[in-house]
Amino acid sequence: MDIERIHFQQHGDHGGQLVSLEEERNVPFEIRRVYYIFATQPKVHRGRHAHRHLRQLAVAVRGSVTILLDDGTGPVEVVLNDPSQGLLLGDMVWRELYDFSDDCVLMVLADQFYDPADYITDYDEFLREANGYRRVEGAVA
Amino acid sequence: MDIERIHFQQHGDHGGQLVSLEEERNVPFEIRRVYYIFATQPKVHRGRHAHRHLRQLAVAVRGSVTILLDDGTGPVEVVLNDPSQGLLLGDMVWRELYDFSDDCVLMVLADQFYDPADYITDYDEFLREANGYRRVEGAVA
Repeated sequence: MDIERIHFQQHGDHGGQLVSLEEERNVPFEIRRVYYIFATQPKVHRGRHAHRHLRQLAVAVRGSVTILLDDGTGPVEVVLNDPSQGLLLGDMVWRELYDFSDDCVLMVLADQFYDPADYITDYDEFLREANGYRRVEGAVA
Repeated sequence: MDIERIHFQQHGDHGGQLVSLEEERNVPFEIRRVYYIFATQPKVHRGRHAHRHLRQLAVAVRGSVTILLDDGTGPVEVVLNDPSQGLLLGDMVWRELYDFSDDCVLMVLADQFYDPADYITDYDEFLREANGYRRVEGAVA
């Protein structure tokens, strides 16, 4: 599956902590967009879509959230609960976000601007495209 | 003083909130670096420096912090405590950060990579350069 966890260095001392993310350095793409999700109500599920062409890095800069990831071969659950842990997501990964803690702030860096046309929001359509995607990837490899 | 407050649209509903920042769109520069400050201990002051050539956008994505800003003509205090409020900082502004709430996460977007040579950490040196800077700016205007 096109996901990866990245550990970022914390620049900290007794006074506090700082994490620095730089495009094409410890973030493996150009940062065009930064968004953050907060004040998520209990029992809310977010996401439930995939992107055709989008690289993203997600960090729970506060609190925790669970993310289900699925490339069409079955789901994997990842918990983000550490400001120094990033989750790198590539193309064609279905994601669903839930179990947000009350205080969760999920920050996401993306290599493209917001583009509604890049979303696949129907899971069956996602499976069809994902199967084709894997065949092409396999053929190339 | 080369500072500005920006209000960002919150894309929200009963389930939660999202704010989206895009370079050269609602953020008036190219985003090269994103850093975040957290777990700051009580009574800690951070900052106490200026940058010669750096544009930054600061957002308290969680909690609150007070920022003292000074371009050499006297200080201004700004409180950041709203995830939809950004503070835009230009060149040659001395800043000091304090009164971090326990839960504060201060996210900063910057148009340059980290560069130790761009910091002015001595206030008297800052005043000397700031006076020269204002004279040049005045001459150009």
